[in-house]
Amino acid sequence: MRLAILLYDRFTALDAVGPYEVLSRLPGAESVFVAERVGPVTSDVGSLSITATATLDEVPSPDVVLVPGGPGQAELMADGPVHEWLRAVDRTSTWTTSVCTGSLILAAAGLLTGRRATTHWLFTDQLPALGATPADERVVVDGKYVTAAGVSAGIDMGLTLAGQIAGDEVAQLIALGIEYAPEPPYRAGGPSTAPAAIVELMRANARTIMA
Amino acid sequence: MRLAILLYDRFTALDAVGPYEVLSRLPGAESVFVAERVGPVTSDVGSLSITATATLDEVPSPDVVLVPGGPGQAELMADGPVHEWLRAVDRTSTWTTSVCTGSLILAAAGLLTGRRATTHWLFTDQLPALGATPADERVVVDGKYVTAAGVSAGIDMGLTLAGQIAGDEVAQLIALGIEYAPEPPYRAGGPSTAPAAIVELMRANARTIMA
Repeated sequence: MRLAILLYDRFTALDAVGPYEVLSRLPGAESVFVAERVGPVTSDVGSLSITATATLDEVPSPDVVLVPGGPGQAELMADGPVHEWLRAVDRTSTWTTSVCTGSLILAAAGLLTGRRATTHWLFTDQLPALGATPADERVVVDGKYVTAAGVSAGIDMGLTLAGQIAGDEVAQLIALGIEYAPEPPYRAGGPSTAPAAIVELMRANARTIMA
Repeated sequence: MRLAILLYDRFTALDAVGPYEVLSRLPGAESVFVAERVGPVTSDVGSLSITATATLDEVPSPDVVLVPGGPGQAELMADGPVHEWLRAVDRTSTWTTSVCTGSLILAAAGLLTGRRATTHWLFTDQLPALGATPADERVVVDGKYVTAAGVSAGIDMGLTLAGQIAGDEVAQLIALGIEYAPEPPYRAGGPSTAPAAIVELMRANARTIMA
């Protein structure tokens, strides 16, 4: 199984690393971080860079494609090399996936038309104009298109996909290996559970808080 | 708040990136990835590299020190530059922290003597010989020493620490920003909840599965 993770300036690191940590451990997995140029790609906060080791052209037929989200997503909504690559690899991919606002890039490239999908909760209202139908689930599977909600949802997506690709036993082994028994210290991870004042503050300051 | 995250060959990426994604978003946070040498440092799976932008000497007094785990931890159990740096920065740190087997490095450097601590569930039996007392909690706070269980527990630790450093409101904002409302597709994240056969398989194949 060949996994390609797209990197771009101001991606959100956990969007990429959460599912990577799961899917790269599948038996026989070969993972590659791909970008328009090889070299370090800096995430949204500005102090973390992950190395892209292949250009788009060098990865023509991955089995699994993963598009992380992040503020840099806004720069990738117009047609161009990334959209062309996504459409090309989608022709032969087994799974085309995203975390957070990565789904907005997939949708803008025309790959989620008529599909159920999700994204970061602050951005779900952008999906319909891009042809997708928002679904209120943390991980949305519609055919081979798998989209996850904001940032940390990529871990849940990774394990869901691991089960689909390699079966429950392997997925459980990986969950046990990464000790995935979360105990969130705050019940604040979504707009319906967080205190209303926190949700309002987030809406008002999204740009600052999410870099 | 200055956050220093230690990198070393064959660290586990999510150990570092989980808490980074939380703590780097604290107001006024300055984060740096530090290693014996600057440049890309490759994680355990072999296909992900994060750039270290500072050497140990260049980061003499971070407020928060974070040591991730990973198979490369085994190479850092003997005294040397990393232990010396950890002991030096610990003298002035506000918080000295670890994820997964990072606590074994902290303990080997002499920093957890007489402290309650945790690590990846497969390695808790190594803590007593290193002077620490294993505690069966996902995030263990003993004074300024905060240790997290395996890999994904770093996110819970990050949010716990965010609350301590900046208060509940800021921590909740970050939780909402990273949409941290986990829905694990498998109840297999610990040895007491995973199917017994999976736990046995993991014990027998730990080296292969955890790279």
